[in-house]
Amino acid sequence: MGAILLRDVTIRDIRKDVLIEQGRIAKTGPAGACGAWQLAGDIEIMDCSGKVAVPGFINMHTHSPMSLMRGIGEDVLFHEWLDKIWKVEEHLDHDFVYWGTKVACLEMIRTGTTTFNDQYWFFDSSVKAAREMGLRIATGYDVMDKGSREEALRQKDQCIAKSEAYLSAGDPGHIYELAFHAVYSVSEEMIVWTSELAQKYDVNLHIHLCETRKEVEDCKAAHGGLTPVEYLDRLGVLSPRLLAAHTLWLTPHDIELLAARGVHCIHNINSNTKLASGYRFLYNEMRDAGINLCLGTDGCASSNNLDMLEAMKTAAIFQKAWREDPAALPLPELMDMATVNGARALRLDAGRIEEGAAADLILIETDNTFFLSPGPFLANLVYSAHSDCIDSVICDGRFLMRHREIPGEREILAEARKVLAKIS
Amino acid sequence: MGAILLRDVTIRDIRKDVLIEQGRIAKTGPAGACGAWQLAGDIEIMDCSGKVAVPGFINMHTHSPMSLMRGIGEDVLFHEWLDKIWKVEEHLDHDFVYWGTKVACLEMIRTGTTTFNDQYWFFDSSVKAAREMGLRIATGYDVMDKGSREEALRQKDQCIAKSEAYLSAGDPGHIYELAFHAVYSVSEEMIVWTSELAQKYDVNLHIHLCETRKEVEDCKAAHGGLTPVEYLDRLGVLSPRLLAAHTLWLTPHDIELLAARGVHCIHNINSNTKLASGYRFLYNEMRDAGINLCLGTDGCASSNNLDMLEAMKTAAIFQKAWREDPAALPLPELMDMATVNGARALRLDAGRIEEGAAADLILIETDNTFFLSPGPFLANLVYSAHSDCIDSVICDGRFLMRHREIPGEREILAEARKVLAKIS
Repeated sequence: MGAILLRDVTIRDIRKDVLIEQGRIAKTGPAGACGAWQLAGDIEIMDCSGKVAVPGFINMHTHSPMSLMRGIGEDVLFHEWLDKIWKVEEHLDHDFVYWGTKVACLEMIRTGTTTFNDQYWFFDSSVKAAREMGLRIATGYDVMDKGSREEALRQKDQCIAKSEAYLSAGDPGHIYELAFHAVYSVSEEMIVWTSELAQKYDVNLHIHLCETRKEVEDCKAAHGGLTPVEYLDRLGVLSPRLLAAHTLWLTPHDIELLAARGVHCIHNINSNTKLASGYRFLYNEMRDAGINLCLGTDGCASSNNLDMLEAMKTAAIFQKAWREDPAALPLPELMDMATVNGARALRLDAGRIEEGAAADLILIETDNTFFLSPGPFLANLVYSAHSDCIDSVICDGRFLMRHREIPGEREILAEARKVLAKIS
Repeated sequence: MGAILLRDVTIRDIRKDVLIEQGRIAKTGPAGACGAWQLAGDIEIMDCSGKVAVPGFINMHTHSPMSLMRGIGEDVLFHEWLDKIWKVEEHLDHDFVYWGTKVACLEMIRTGTTTFNDQYWFFDSSVKAAREMGLRIATGYDVMDKGSREEALRQKDQCIAKSEAYLSAGDPGHIYELAFHAVYSVSEEMIVWTSELAQKYDVNLHIHLCETRKEVEDCKAAHGGLTPVEYLDRLGVLSPRLLAAHTLWLTPHDIELLAARGVHCIHNINSNTKLASGYRFLYNEMRDAGINLCLGTDGCASSNNLDMLEAMKTAAIFQKAWREDPAALPLPELMDMATVNGARALRLDAGRIEEGAAADLILIETDNTFFLSPGPFLANLVYSAHSDCIDSVICDGRFLMRHREIPGEREILAEARKVLAKIS
């Protein structure tokens, strides 16, 4: 792997030179400092004057192959939407998942994401696609037995076989994890079994939690008044390995439990609002309780894109609006949600552009109307600009996009069209 | 002015040829039909296969020179924000307004707007800038005496002189209108005077109305319990010439009055939410009462960009979220708000791509991940894509942007930087 030198790149308002080697930030210094550095022969030098580097975004909850399922269930409530999705998913195969993930990777690279936390069927194909595209992916076996004993037994065997194969493979760009869908789609036995397996392997467990009011009400009716959070706590599932997506309908007691057990919570505002699941994400309350809060886009069938910058702006304006507080969700905290907090949940040393950290970063072009103002950079980036200001993307020390060019883009779009033609 | 032939362009899911002459849609027919058309020699032919045409967006409320004022008042409440803005505005001049409008036009063209309804100081410079850039602009003298008798007298004289000059000039690309800022910043005498002048000239009157709860409460306290809408009705200001921006805090009686008087109302969701002014825009109630509802971005100091596609998505997800109805604000109605409803308010025959209408349209590039789905085109455009899918923009039969290239862009950004350097 060759080295990269970023000359005169702005980081937190300071112009710097940055040397990337072996997938890490090897050295940083003031702009011009690189003149005195010993550089390897095999090095790519990029002049970054006028560009700003920020950490690559970490999309902490998505279902990447759904990039081919946009528009399947428009303008319907979450549970009707889920029925439509499940019907289509009966006919999926590896080919669909592979090309769907490739398309998702194109979109994520264009919009500045370098790592994503995925949950989907045929995850092997998503891993293959993401690693070929150069993104880091967190994913693994997803349990959803819908209460079927036969399905549970089949999934147990398959889950162990897959997990052990991946855990022994040890690709550092694939963070293996387990998943179960949600309290309403997985039997109690399988919830406990999956959670104990995650503990045994010491891997994360990725779930949907408290996404809709109906989920909470149904859970209380089924489990003696326990909320989904209380129910999972009784089953011993809450832990710092748990990555809980949505966490929208929480009681103060739920928040206490999530904080006490070290659960990481993932906000998915575009999906929640578009499906009318809710919008009063208890950001202040959860943050003040000490919960690590991350950001995700959810899958394209609900959200309907993978753009983390858009998710950031939407998250900010919803908090400001419903709290009637224009200072709600301050920009530095929002940036942390989209970067370093996700890294912490995935136990990655990323989300910061400092010596020693993973070289996962994006370069922002500021020579356009959106950055032409006296305002703070983060305000311009989040409130004014769009993701097309993202000029280049580096992950694990390699360029995934250079000046808006992604190798193989045309071929991927063409192959994806063939997959869509087959199922339509 | 030369003619333009758009070959094989998709309009409402049908592939067509479109001939543009003299600023109008001269002819349309099925793709391939143009082979039989008699075409002038001076014609530009664009192959549009894979591209979709939609009407150019009509941004019905903005303050374009504020493109240079982003970030001046981040994360503060509306009335604090307004104080900050008014302080900066004391030092404005024609140069600032001219280059600020040029920058705004760049951003509007890139994001697909062909007509904008503006309200700002030194509007002559905005008209000059917009017309040089080829956009249609609705703007004119803006009254804001802040209760000063001396200021009122000065503004009356100036307003009449300016109005008569512009009305006799008769540039069809400049829709002359009058404006007064709001019920809290303009004296009753000047509200009535401006309104009567608009009636006399038969031009529109562009105002801010019911933007914040405080505005409504202050008005009721000052005017014997009358809401701003009731107060303006008592003064005879409500009419089909009135373009009322915001209309966020309305009573059922306000809605009845606005509907009965034929007032056009303009939703500015990004500004309202970012300033925490409110989000429960009574779309269904106002639509059902028969009010013509339009969309705007507001100025960049509050919103913080001029992107109508972003405003459309934000408007949709807020309606869905707070109404708990995923079908709220259907896409065809949203598209009308952003196009033809604005045209109706401005008495323009635009907002539709049909023979005879103004040739104001944008071409969408669909060869990317956002449109790669079986979903409806409008869902992909509004929910998935960003404005960088806008490939080309035509206004009044002329290309303002061809394949993402806008003539003079670099020079405008450079001149705007000089203006900003002078005031910083």
